[in-house]
Amino acid sequence: MKQWMLPLLALASSGVAQATEGMWQPHQLPALKAKMDALGFNMDANKMADLGAFPMNAVINFNGCSASFVSPQGLVVTNHHCGYGAIAYHSTPADNILNEGFLAKRLEQEKPPVPGYKIWVTESMTDVTAKVLEPAAKLTGADYFEAIERNKKRLVAACEQAPSSRCGVYNFHHGASYFLVQELEIRDVRLVYTPAMSVGKYGGDIDNWMWPRHTGDYSFFRAYVGKDGKPAEYSKDNVPYVPKRFLKVSSAGLKDNDFVMVMGYPGRTNRYRTAAEVEFAFEQNYPKSMDLRNELIDIIKANAAEGSTARLAYAGTLAGLANYAKNFQSMIEGYQSSDFIERKRAQEQALLKWIEAEDERAAQYGKVKLKLDSLVEQTQQHLDRDLILGYLYYNQMFTTAQSLYRLANEKQKPDLERKKGYQQRDWDNMRARITRMERRFDPKVDKAILLHLLERYAQLPSDERIEALDVAFLIGESFNRDKVAAQLDAMYANTALTSSANRLAWLDKTVPQFNVSDDPFIKLAVAYYDTVIAKETLDKKIDGELLKARPAYMNAIIAHKQSMGDLVYADANSSLRVSFGTVKGYFPKDGLYAAPFTTLEGLANKATGVEPFDASAAQLKQIADKNYSHYYDLNVGSVPVNFLSTVDTTGGNSGSATVNGNGELVGLLFDGVYESIIADWDYDPAKARSIHVDSRYMLWQMEKVDGATNLIEEMTVVK
Amino acid sequence: MKQWMLPLLALASSGVAQATEGMWQPHQLPALKAKMDALGFNMDANKMADLGAFPMNAVINFNGCSASFVSPQGLVVTNHHCGYGAIAYHSTPADNILNEGFLAKRLEQEKPPVPGYKIWVTESMTDVTAKVLEPAAKLTGADYFEAIERNKKRLVAACEQAPSSRCGVYNFHHGASYFLVQELEIRDVRLVYTPAMSVGKYGGDIDNWMWPRHTGDYSFFRAYVGKDGKPAEYSKDNVPYVPKRFLKVSSAGLKDNDFVMVMGYPGRTNRYRTAAEVEFAFEQNYPKSMDLRNELIDIIKANAAEGSTARLAYAGTLAGLANYAKNFQSMIEGYQSSDFIERKRAQEQALLKWIEAEDERAAQYGKVKLKLDSLVEQTQQHLDRDLILGYLYYNQMFTTAQSLYRLANEKQKPDLERKKGYQQRDWDNMRARITRMERRFDPKVDKAILLHLLERYAQLPSDERIEALDVAFLIGESFNRDKVAAQLDAMYANTALTSSANRLAWLDKTVPQFNVSDDPFIKLAVAYYDTVIAKETLDKKIDGELLKARPAYMNAIIAHKQSMGDLVYADANSSLRVSFGTVKGYFPKDGLYAAPFTTLEGLANKATGVEPFDASAAQLKQIADKNYSHYYDLNVGSVPVNFLSTVDTTGGNSGSATVNGNGELVGLLFDGVYESIIADWDYDPAKARSIHVDSRYMLWQMEKVDGATNLIEEMTVVK
Repeated sequence: MKQWMLPLLALASSGVAQATEGMWQPHQLPALKAKMDALGFNMDANKMADLGAFPMNAVINFNGCSASFVSPQGLVVTNHHCGYGAIAYHSTPADNILNEGFLAKRLEQEKPPVPGYKIWVTESMTDVTAKVLEPAAKLTGADYFEAIERNKKRLVAACEQAPSSRCGVYNFHHGASYFLVQELEIRDVRLVYTPAMSVGKYGGDIDNWMWPRHTGDYSFFRAYVGKDGKPAEYSKDNVPYVPKRFLKVSSAGLKDNDFVMVMGYPGRTNRYRTAAEVEFAFEQNYPKSMDLRNELIDIIKANAAEGSTARLAYAGTLAGLANYAKNFQSMIEGYQSSDFIERKRAQEQALLKWIEAEDERAAQYGKVKLKLDSLVEQTQQHLDRDLILGYLYYNQMFTTAQSLYRLANEKQKPDLERKKGYQQRDWDNMRARITRMERRFDPKVDKAILLHLLERYAQLPSDERIEALDVAFLIGESFNRDKVAAQLDAMYANTALTSSANRLAWLDKTVPQFNVSDDPFIKLAVAYYDTVIAKETLDKKIDGELLKARPAYMNAIIAHKQSMGDLVYADANSSLRVSFGTVKGYFPKDGLYAAPFTTLEGLANKATGVEPFDASAAQLKQIADKNYSHYYDLNVGSVPVNFLSTVDTTGGNSGSATVNGNGELVGLLFDGVYESIIADWDYDPAKARSIHVDSRYMLWQMEKVDGATNLIEEMTVVK
Repeated sequence: MKQWMLPLLALASSGVAQATEGMWQPHQLPALKAKMDALGFNMDANKMADLGAFPMNAVINFNGCSASFVSPQGLVVTNHHCGYGAIAYHSTPADNILNEGFLAKRLEQEKPPVPGYKIWVTESMTDVTAKVLEPAAKLTGADYFEAIERNKKRLVAACEQAPSSRCGVYNFHHGASYFLVQELEIRDVRLVYTPAMSVGKYGGDIDNWMWPRHTGDYSFFRAYVGKDGKPAEYSKDNVPYVPKRFLKVSSAGLKDNDFVMVMGYPGRTNRYRTAAEVEFAFEQNYPKSMDLRNELIDIIKANAAEGSTARLAYAGTLAGLANYAKNFQSMIEGYQSSDFIERKRAQEQALLKWIEAEDERAAQYGKVKLKLDSLVEQTQQHLDRDLILGYLYYNQMFTTAQSLYRLANEKQKPDLERKKGYQQRDWDNMRARITRMERRFDPKVDKAILLHLLERYAQLPSDERIEALDVAFLIGESFNRDKVAAQLDAMYANTALTSSANRLAWLDKTVPQFNVSDDPFIKLAVAYYDTVIAKETLDKKIDGELLKARPAYMNAIIAHKQSMGDLVYADANSSLRVSFGTVKGYFPKDGLYAAPFTTLEGLANKATGVEPFDASAAQLKQIADKNYSHYYDLNVGSVPVNFLSTVDTTGGNSGSATVNGNGELVGLLFDGVYESIIADWDYDPAKARSIHVDSRYMLWQMEKVDGATNLIEEMTVVK
C-alpha cells in the first residue's frame, strides 16, 4: 500500500461545485461554448454540431450501448459489458475466452460477427416536428396518438429505403419536437480483443454502482464492410470499414478538475416531471416495486436450490430483479435524504408565478399545469393493479401465450399498422427470444411466481380485478391458496408451451387456430385479450392527450428558463447526446470523500483470488513489480484505473468515449455511483458522478499484461 | 445535506505526510522545539518540561483515563466513556441519567463521588534508574527480577508516605531507565454534567474504531478537597479544588493541517520488538487468540438466549471478547496488507550492520540481539498451552478459587513481598470484584466455557498438559466429552463458590483451611497451585534475564538512532506523555479519503431513532434549524463534530486534552481509526489517525441542546 505514502491529491479547493447538468443535442453545443471553454474545452464548439466531422463522427451506437472508432481501420472500443454477449457467444468450455480473454494479433484471427451485434453511425438528425405533428393537429386522444405513430412510421419507412440505413423518429421534450435520425448500419462486427473477465468485470455485481472501483470495463471490435466500402453481410472478403473520423487515444490522461466530455446514447431520464409525479414515483411506485422484486427473489430462491439447473436458469432473472431492487433502494434513499421534492415544488411555484405575471403568458400557459396534473392523475389511479399485472411478465407461460396470440392478431393488419414489436422487422428477435426461453425457464419456479403474484392480485379491491383472470385461476372473494395451486398444477400439466418446438409452432398459427385451442395458457391469453386491448385503447387515449399536454408544459418550462438565460436540454431518449463536466470526487457520506482516481495498488489490494476479485497472477506481478511503463501518474502515485467525473450520463451511455478538451480519448464511461442513481430524476451536482475506466489503465493492461501491442500500434496514442 | 455544497476542503496537497510518530516524555519536548514550531506550535517548548507549569499541570489521570482541568474551580473534562461507570452508578430506573444525561446547575446538585473514581495529578517524575538497578547489579535471573521489584516497591512505599500521594516506578525502554512518578490523589470527584448516552455514546459499538464518527464522547466532573485545600475523603464541607493551571477552551477550533497536541497517559505500545517477536505475534498469537475469542463468543451466545438474564450478565464479557477479536482482526489485516515485517527486518539488518561497523560498538552491542532472540524464543515455546490456560480466566469458578487461594498464600508474607495485586492496598478492589461477580456470572455459561476450553486443552501434546488439570477433569489420552461434562456437572453442583457470601467468606481464610476444603474448585485451586508457582518461577527467571537483555538491545537501538540524529521515545507505559501532529485525513482504501471533519448534518443523517443512533428530537431540531450559534465553521459548512489527527496515541489516552498551538483546548482524544489499531506496533504515517471530539461540538451541545450555560460561563472560552 505504498501509494498512500504519496497522496499528491489535488482535491478540489474550490467552493460550490460547478454544475454540469445536461445531456445536450450536438446542435446545442455552440451555444454552450463559453461554459465549455471555461472548464477547459480546447476545440471549436461549432464543429461539435456537425455529425459528419470530428469528433462526433467517430461516435457510434453499439447495439444499444455507446462506442467510438479509434483507428482508421474501423477499430471500435466499447465497454466489456457491452461486448459481453458477443464474447460469451464465442466462448466454449475448451476455449473460454470470456474467462481468459482474447486477442487477435492479425485481422484473420478476429472472431466472426454475432447475430444481432450491430453498429450504427448517426449520419443525420433532421427536425421533422412539422411532418409529425401537422397532419395530426386536429385530432385528439387515441386518434392523435395513432396519427403521430403512423406519421413516424412513414418517415422511418421512407428513410430506410436508403441502403444500410436504420432510421428512427425521436420524440424530444415529451412531444414538443421530433427528429428523424438516420444511421448507417454496419452488420459485420468482429471481436478483436477483450481482457479476461477478471479485468473486464473485476468486482462484478458486488462493485456494481460502487466506488472505489477497479474495473477494466473495455473491449475492442472491428467494423467490416464490403469491398465497395458499403455495409454488407458477413463475408470473408469483407474489409475493415474506414470511418470518416476516429479518436486519438491519450496516454497522458487527466487530473482532478480537468475538463471531460462524453458522447453517446443516453436512454431515459425524468428531469421535467411534475412534483406530483415525483412524489408518486418515490413514495408509491418505487417502494411497491422494490417490495415485489424482493418477494420474487425470495420465491425464486426458495424454489430453485443453489447450484441447481433451475437456479442457473434464473441467474439472469435474479440478477435483473436484484439490480433494480438495489436501484430503487438507492432512489428511495436519495429521495428521503434530500430536499428533492421541496425543490421540485418550489420550481413549480416559481414557474406558475412567472406564467401569471403577464397576461399574454397566462393566456398561453395558464392551464397547462392543471391539464397535465389531471392526466397524470388518471395514469396513477390503478397503480396496485398495474404493478401486479406488469410483474406477471415474470411468469413466462402466460407472457409467452399472450405474445404469441398478439402476434397472430397483429399479423392480420398491414405491417405499418402493427403494434411496435410485432412488425415484420421484429419477427427474428421474437423467434430468438422464444427459443432462448428454453434455458431460462423452469416450470416449478414459473408456477411459484405465478401463484405468488395471484395471491397479491387477489388482495386488490374487487373492482380492480379482471374477470378473465378470476375465472381462469378460480379466484373468488377470498383467496384459497390450495385451490389456486391445484389449478396451476393442472394448467402446467396440460400446457404444451413448456416445449420450445411447440412455442415456435404457435408463431405461425392464425387467430382462429388460437381460439379453438385447449391449451390452458393459450385459452387464458385468448380470454384475456379483450382486457389487454381495452387497456391499450384507454392508454392510447390518455397518451394522446399527454402528447399534447406534456409539450405544452415543457414549452412553458423552456420559455421560463430561457427568460432567465438558461438553455434547456431534453430528457434522454436514446439519441446522440454530449455531456461535459470535470474530473471530480464527491462525499458519499459526511466525513468520507470519494477521491477521483483509483490505482493499480488498490486493484491489487482488492484481489482475493476468488471471482469477482480474481485478478490474475500475471497482472498482480506487474503491479507488485511497479511496472508502470509510461502510464504512471505522479498525482496519484501509480497508474490510474478508474476515475470519477461530474458528467451527466445514464444507462445507454455505457461505452461512451470520454474525451479531454482536445477530443482525445481519455477513457470510457461505464457506470454511475450509487448516490447518483436518483440523477435520472434529479441531478445533484454534489453527488451525481459518472465512473470511467482510464485510458492509461487500458493501455497499461494491453501493453504489460495482455501483449496487445498490435492494437496500441494501430491506434494513434498521444501524450 | 447542504454542507456538501460547500466542500472548502483544504486537503493536503503536500507530498509525503509529515511523520509525527512519538509519545514523548515532557522532558524531551525542548529538544523537539524546531519540529513542533514548524507544525504550528506557538508556546515555549522549554516550559512543556515543567510539570508544575502551564499546560502540563492542567493534565490529569482520571481513573486510568486522561483528563484536564478547565476552570479555576477544579472543573474536569474527560471522555464520556471514561466517566461511564460513574454516570451509570448514579443512574436509577426512575432517574436514568445514563440515558437522559445530567446537568448540575449549582455546586450542591453535583453527584457525590463514586468509590474508586479518583483523579491523579502528576507532580513530579524523578529518574531513579540508579536506585532501582544498582542494588541488583550483580544478580541474575529470578533474583535480579525480584530485586528490581523489591527496589521499586521500596521507592513507592517511601514516596507514598507523603499525604495524598500515589506513587509508581515506571520502567522505560523495557528496563533501561526507571522514573518515580509522584501524583497527588484527589478522592472526592463529583459528576457535574454529562450529555445523554445518545450523544456521549452515539454510534455505540457499531462506530467503535470507525470513521466517519459523530460521538460527543465527553463528560464533566469536579475535583473537591478539604477546606484546607488538601485532598480529603468526601464531605459536604469539601470545596472545589483550585488547580495550579487550567486550560482555556477554544470556540474557534481547528482547520485541516493545523497543529494539535495531546497530553495524557498512553498505556502500552510495542514499537521496539524484534522481527521475530512481530512475526510470532501476528502469525501465531493474534490469529489463535482471535479464534479462541470467536469460539467463546459462540459458546456464550449458544448458552445464554438473547434477552435472558444470563445474556445480560455476559453482555460486558461478550463486548470485551468481540472488541478484541475486532482489534486482532484489524491488526492481522494491517500486517498482511503492509510491508511491516519487511521493514522491521530491514531496520534490524541496518542496526546489526551499524553495530559491526566499528570494533568498539561490536564489543558493546555485538551479542545483544542474539541474547534477546534466544530469550524471546523461550517465552514463545508454549504458546498453545499458555493461550488456553490464559483464556481459562474466562471461567469464573476456577479463576475465583485460584485468586482466593493465592491471597491466602500471599498473606503469609510481609506486605512488600506479596505478589502485585495481592498487597493490602489491593484488597478493597479484590472484594469489590468478587462481589460484582454476582451480576456477571451464570453457572450454565461458566460451565460451557470451561468444557470448551478443556476440549481445546485436551488437544495439546501430552507433555504440554498439566497433571492437576488432567486429574481434576478426568482427561486421559482421548477427550471423552460426555465424561468430562458429567464431571463438571458434579463440580458445579457441589461448589459453594457460586454464592457471593461464600466467596467473600473465603477472603479471610487461611491456607490450611483451603487445604482441607471439599469444595471441588477450591480443591482444584490447591492442586493447581504448584503448577502456577513453578510457571511463575520460570517466568521470573526469564523476565529477569529479559530485564537485562531488552535494555541492552534498546540501548543499541537508541545509540543507532542518535547516530542518525533521531530522538527516541520510549514505548508507552501509562506514564504522562505528549504527542503532537496535525489535523489530517487519510485513505482507508484506494479511492476513498476519510476527510478530517464530520458535521452536525452527518450526525443527523445517521439518526435512525434506534440505539446507538437515537439522536434526540431536540438535538435534531437544532440541526434542522441550522442553529449553529458561533460554532459554525466556514470550511466544513457546519459545526464540526469529530476530527482526525496524526497524533500518536493508544489506549489510556482516552479523554486526553487536545490543544492547539496556544495550548487551548480544541477537543478530546477518544479513539483511533480501525486502520491504526496496528499502530501499537507500527506507526504508519499514512494510516495512523486519532479521533477527537471537537470543542465546538461540545460547546454547541452544551449551549443549544443541554443548556449547560453555567459551565460555559465558568470556563474561559476563547475565540
